[in-house]
Amino acid sequence: MAEIFEPLTVLSEQFNKLPGIGKKTAQRLAYYVLMQPDEFARDFSNALLDAKAKVRYCKTCQNICAGDVCSVCGNAKRDQSTVMVVKSPKELIAMEKTGEYQGVYHVLHGLISPMDGISPDDLTIKELLARISLGNIEEVILTLSPTVEGDATAMYLAKLLKPLGIKVTRIAQGLPMGSDIEYADEATLLMAWKERKEL
Amino acid sequence: MAEIFEPLTVLSEQFNKLPGIGKKTAQRLAYYVLMQPDEFARDFSNALLDAKAKVRYCKTCQNICAGDVCSVCGNAKRDQSTVMVVKSPKELIAMEKTGEYQGVYHVLHGLISPMDGISPDDLTIKELLARISLGNIEEVILTLSPTVEGDATAMYLAKLLKPLGIKVTRIAQGLPMGSDIEYADEATLLMAWKERKEL
Repeated sequence: MAEIFEPLTVLSEQFNKLPGIGKKTAQRLAYYVLMQPDEFARDFSNALLDAKAKVRYCKTCQNICAGDVCSVCGNAKRDQSTVMVVKSPKELIAMEKTGEYQGVYHVLHGLISPMDGISPDDLTIKELLARISLGNIEEVILTLSPTVEGDATAMYLAKLLKPLGIKVTRIAQGLPMGSDIEYADEATLLMAWKERKEL
Repeated sequence: MAEIFEPLTVLSEQFNKLPGIGKKTAQRLAYYVLMQPDEFARDFSNALLDAKAKVRYCKTCQNICAGDVCSVCGNAKRDQSTVMVVKSPKELIAMEKTGEYQGVYHVLHGLISPMDGISPDDLTIKELLARISLGNIEEVILTLSPTVEGDATAMYLAKLLKPLGIKVTRIAQGLPMGSDIEYADEATLLMAWKERKEL
């Protein structure tokens, strides 16, 4: 659309930078915004700036929040002796939706990945160690994906935390609920067989 | 994500207002923006405001443009006696991509649709009549989709323009290039048969 109306091309390129938004979809979205009342672009623009400007990280668990301490850490009813380690706020939100977990979290903001140049120093591991040094934490639950990066991070943390006398666990791997063994991939089936439990 | 970080929910709701962006995708996009450097949200915000603030409509053809007259109408090489009527700038862009059409356009900004409450008065038909009254237009090509709304608009315009001595044509309907008759829908096949041409 460059020759037709330059600012539309610029907007379309911005949409195109978002993950999963292709060139055609980006053009369609940019055109849609253009056809909306002025308030639409203004509200959208404010929401973008506001989210970015107001975001803080909880000084305890590193979760995103608006103040000093997030709503989970600030909740006196949560069990502060159990810390669930997650990759990002997205996994925290997924876990919170189950409504069952009563402990607190620690957000790593990434996983160890030599391929992407992400080392333990790039994660919030020193903040986790600082929390543990205060002496009130009994169990650390590693809720990390069963991927190369998730496994590497889990192993690194287990090696680091177990000598400190902390109980370190990792969420179970196996067949997902409601899945059909016939269609399970080999790696999952192998893992599920190895991790079998006595009934 | 409401309880976690309010401004992220607001941003996510903005993304959710875009066509084809569901709740889950909207959350993912909002979170992505939050994780980018400050410039990302700022550039995005500027692009939104800029596109909306700078958009003008060509005083000749009603196409979107940055100035008084669009790049097509302002091009002295284009044949000003042939006007192609399109629904929106998107169809104009699609036609321009073929690189063959040498005439000019008229953008209706919609199609007649009693179901959606869009009457001829809501479209740029009076602007089209004003152009025609200047006396230089010989042919009006209706490049309108073969849908209920496209048909209604084409019929309305033909009835209005033919008495003025203007040649009114509509783009051909039939089997799309490279398509297989076996898989053509009945309506298209029927139309293609009725519109058959002598070779």
